[in-house]
Amino acid sequence: MSMDGLPKELERLVAEARGAGDWGRPADYIPELAKVDPAQVGVALCLADGTELGAGEADRPFSIQSISKVFSLAAVLGRLGDDLWRRVGREPSGTAFDSIFLLEHENGRPRNPFINAGALVTTDALLGGREPRQALSEIMHLVRAAAEDDDIHIDKAVAESEKATASRNMALLYYLQSHDNLLNPPEMVMGTYAHQCAIEMTCRQLARAGRMLAMLPGVPAMISPLRARRINALMMTCGQYDGSGNFAFRVGLPGKSGVGGGILLVAPGVASIAVWSPGLDGYGNSQVGTWLAERIAGYTGWSVFAP
Amino acid sequence: MSMDGLPKELERLVAEARGAGDWGRPADYIPELAKVDPAQVGVALCLADGTELGAGEADRPFSIQSISKVFSLAAVLGRLGDDLWRRVGREPSGTAFDSIFLLEHENGRPRNPFINAGALVTTDALLGGREPRQALSEIMHLVRAAAEDDDIHIDKAVAESEKATASRNMALLYYLQSHDNLLNPPEMVMGTYAHQCAIEMTCRQLARAGRMLAMLPGVPAMISPLRARRINALMMTCGQYDGSGNFAFRVGLPGKSGVGGGILLVAPGVASIAVWSPGLDGYGNSQVGTWLAERIAGYTGWSVFAP
Amino acid sequence: MSMDGLPKELERLVAEARGAGDWGRPADYIPELAKVDPAQVGVALCLADGTELGAGEADRPFSIQSISKVFSLAAVLGRLGDDLWRRVGREPSGTAFDSIFLLEHENGRPRNPFINAGALVTTDALLGGREPRQALSEIMHLVRAAAEDDDIHIDKAVAESEKATASRNMALLYYLQSHDNLLNPPEMVMGTYAHQCAIEMTCRQLARAGRMLAMLPGVPAMISPLRARRINALMMTCGQYDGSGNFAFRVGLPGKSGVGGGILLVAPGVASIAVWSPGLDGYGNSQVGTWLAERIAGYTGWSVFAP
Amino acid sequence: MSMDGLPKELERLVAEARGAGDWGRPADYIPELAKVDPAQVGVALCLADGTELGAGEADRPFSIQSISKVFSLAAVLGRLGDDLWRRVGREPSGTAFDSIFLLEHENGRPRNPFINAGALVTTDALLGGREPRQALSEIMHLVRAAAEDDDIHIDKAVAESEKATASRNMALLYYLQSHDNLLNPPEMVMGTYAHQCAIEMTCRQLARAGRMLAMLPGVPAMISPLRARRINALMMTCGQYDGSGNFAFRVGLPGKSGVGGGILLVAPGVASIAVWSPGLDGYGNSQVGTWLAERIAGYTGWSVFAP
Repeated sequence: MSMDGLPKELERLVAEARGAGDWGRPADYIPELAKVDPAQVGVALCLADGTELGAGEADRPFSIQSISKVFSLAAVLGRLGDDLWRRVGREPSGTAFDSIFLLEHENGRPRNPFINAGALVTTDALLGGREPRQALSEIMHLVRAAAEDDDIHIDKAVAESEKATASRNMALLYYLQSHDNLLNPPEMVMGTYAHQCAIEMTCRQLARAGRMLAMLPGVPAMISPLRARRINALMMTCGQYDGSGNFAFRVGLPGKSGVGGGILLVAPGVASIAVWSPGLDGYGNSQVGTWLAERIAGYTGWSVFAP
Repeated sequence: MSMDGLPKELERLVAEARGAGDWGRPADYIPELAKVDPAQVGVALCLADGTELGAGEADRPFSIQSISKVFSLAAVLGRLGDDLWRRVGREPSGTAFDSIFLLEHENGRPRNPFINAGALVTTDALLGGREPRQALSEIMHLVRAAAEDDDIHIDKAVAESEKATASRNMALLYYLQSHDNLLNPPEMVMGTYAHQCAIEMTCRQLARAGRMLAMLPGVPAMISPLRARRINALMMTCGQYDGSGNFAFRVGLPGKSGVGGGILLVAPGVASIAVWSPGLDGYGNSQVGTWLAERIAGYTGWSVFAP
Repeated sequence: MSMDGLPKELERLVAEARGAGDWGRPADYIPELAKVDPAQVGVALCLADGTELGAGEADRPFSIQSISKVFSLAAVLGRLGDDLWRRVGREPSGTAFDSIFLLEHENGRPRNPFINAGALVTTDALLGGREPRQALSEIMHLVRAAAEDDDIHIDKAVAESEKATASRNMALLYYLQSHDNLLNPPEMVMGTYAHQCAIEMTCRQLARAGRMLAMLPGVPAMISPLRARRINALMMTCGQYDGSGNFAFRVGLPGKSGVGGGILLVAPGVASIAVWSPGLDGYGNSQVGTWLAERIAGYTGWSVFAP
Repeated sequence: MSMDGLPKELERLVAEARGAGDWGRPADYIPELAKVDPAQVGVALCLADGTELGAGEADRPFSIQSISKVFSLAAVLGRLGDDLWRRVGREPSGTAFDSIFLLEHENGRPRNPFINAGALVTTDALLGGREPRQALSEIMHLVRAAAEDDDIHIDKAVAESEKATASRNMALLYYLQSHDNLLNPPEMVMGTYAHQCAIEMTCRQLARAGRMLAMLPGVPAMISPLRARRINALMMTCGQYDGSGNFAFRVGLPGKSGVGGGILLVAPGVASIAVWSPGLDGYGNSQVGTWLAERIAGYTGWSVFAP
């Protein structure tokens, strides 16, 4: 299919989104994020031929939040390989993103690396015995190299805001510790995690960073094809919290959402896509962003489940 | 990639599988299935160019059991369209295939159509106000037409055996009824479901029936491409019970398993694959079959998450 | 303490109850019970000196429902002794009366004989290999002998109404069967249970039947003192479903409620008390009945936790 | 009943207990407690006539651990009255003592003040805005005054040992904080709680302190009769964690256990009893202590459920 009409379609979709009556509500548990104007929408794509497209607020930086879990996972798999899976599972959770229930049921081994408990274990593993700044530096290096853009930074105010309201995550960390599934002090892991979540990127930067997962031609080879495929599989089954099955059904592409309103989508071999709109649905995924992702997938026919 | 070496590789994999020390254990809760010799393995593929391959016990009929959920789902979506989703969700369950826990938590709306509770609702919806034989005839028609083979039958002894040991499913049915999510009498739905699960197919027949989901060229168009894609998405996120995430991670293809030991796999646009070996792993999925699926995906490079 | 003022106080409390703004709502899942006028209240007491007191609708028959679990438990302990406890636990459930969750968690052994699952096992044990009418006859004999009143009957219309809306209990029964914790066919146990629940008694009859648990002097010795004490203990910890702790805290006496609006209370050695008002609170216990029980306990100072 | 034979019976029971083959295992999650020799048993009673009895290691101090929850509850009810119940429930939990599951299910309101989460809220409420030493001083004052013995102290080594292994409790505290059900910093509450649990008492001291709950004549009136009754009710329904129902069934007296192996029992108006033996059963209650409690209740006939 020719993608000649895609730029125009993106503009059209952004315009339609801007007319949305219901934008959802920005995450309110992190004060810095609650301040964001919900009536914003952006999108950017990187195609296999090197074309980059953008529409709406494609160049406005936002807090990537849980999308950072993809990058910390990629980094830690690079360091530890499959050893990580002794500490974290690979199954959808069937519960909310910050639930502690299944953690109890499964003796402190989080179901997957994209629920908070699993992401905290991932960050703990990335820390190893190192200082937080070393682990963060490794993530930042990976993200910048993948995006081929050094102008990507951590928003310290957001990190501090998250640390100050981190009771639930601290509970998860102590719970993991009680099951001997935490190597570093809870506060240290929490601080590292809060900073990693506070990475700011634009849709354009995020789409570029996602090219390594889409395995687009001519892109810096940050991770092996097998690893990229497996991360995509995890994004497909676990990337949208308890809305993952529905997202796979409606959109048909691996994706990872963040409570900052961003979603990174991967069409392997074809495109890397970033959408952003700060208002969230009941599962904690961007409401307008999910709609936009579905419409782009519908227009282009991109679906890993299609021929 | 040329598939010239594939026939030989299939023979090699089957030979390697036959040397397996641990075949897993056949389902023991259905007496008729418990009798099956576990030391069997079969595989069949249909490729996009019309080639059909087979190795091992590719022509030995087995009880497809839960794989029938794919066909009843396809049939009922054809009758009801998206109305079904008012009664069943599309999310992985995070629990065992016959768990009643989440059913309680979610007020009688099963998480997805592939856990038992959801499949029972699907069969109930397919029944509508009709007689069991009419619903069964509709499923059989779909399966036979998709496989282009009329020699596919229901094993009555297996159906009776399943009905006689159906306490857990009867509990689910009455529970659904108590939540007004059952239209027909529990016994009627149970009887229909037991018969649908007792369909016998060979790997070759199953691979042929799966072509409609793989959307291979020149195959009878039983369902629309959008519907096929969506069923594939459900197979990816929910097809292997509480082992679905791991299956997606390791195999990278949508699949649906049955406690008879069969697995149907879909490589959209490329191939339809059926593997069979009666011994099960701890999740209720074929142990050697899962291994075989992973090896075939590894050899061919087929993965929906690859370029 | 002299109880001379008690008759007058009962009249006063009934009058105050009649002015209640909120009577709660009668059980609506059994159609026959839903018809009952909620604006009714009755109370009866049997004291250690043989005095019997009554106020309000003390002589109006009502459906004792789950209060019958006390009598079937007494009967089955008489038949089986402590063997019953291999099939049923003695712990409060921490969940609603008809929950299936903990049943799954504990492999089909109900937490106690007063949640529905446990009462169904109790009735199943009472049946042994006998006909329903034999088991029912045993319960009726016990109740009539304890109350020294043969004019106690089963309301067949209520029994049929309950059987017709028994999906949840049927689910529990099949679930118990799937765990090999049911000896008789689910339908047979359900029928027996529905009839046992449909016993009709007046407050006066119920208070008289309760004298065996209060171990009042000169009362027919239906059960041993040790057994009476233990049944009282179960009533204290499990008798009001998920409101048992609060009832113990507020009232301080063992009690067993039924969704017909009755509550049987036991002040060991001192009094047997029956209250009735059909409207229920959120736990399924009589709203005005609970209030009345608390006020009577407050006035008399009867509490097993007092000197 | 004459209690003349009781002293001899206590000696006999202690001798029989000393011959026990299986003492259970001391709590191993607090290193200081794990060191205790399990083959010890002590008992002390205070009777209504002022008699004090003891046998075995009645004068050996042990760590009262969770029994302190009774004293902190009494103290905080004295300060706050029924306001506490807005933050804590009064229902048995149906789960293990340190479970986090129901806390999630009930939005951060612990089921009762005797599971860890509820006891932490109780200590938090006792702190108010004060320093830990002020709250601890209040508890110590209450315990010493109730026992009429100033020689009761906190074992600092045990407190430090508990703080050092407090991951699970820290998880509960942060979880409570995330539900706005914690007023003070988690570390401060944890420190206070660890010290309160580390109070050391002998059986004799504990039995004396329990006289206020038994409301024995001539005992210092630390709390009102209504409050004593209500605390007894909570001990009855929730005092032995998930073994409370069974304890009520077997022993018939309100009791509160601690993982140090002590149990405080209350026979209202009749006696206050303390038993101690460090080995625990599967619920975390003293194994030999529970046996001893049951035998004493059996010998004396003391049961709140008896006439």
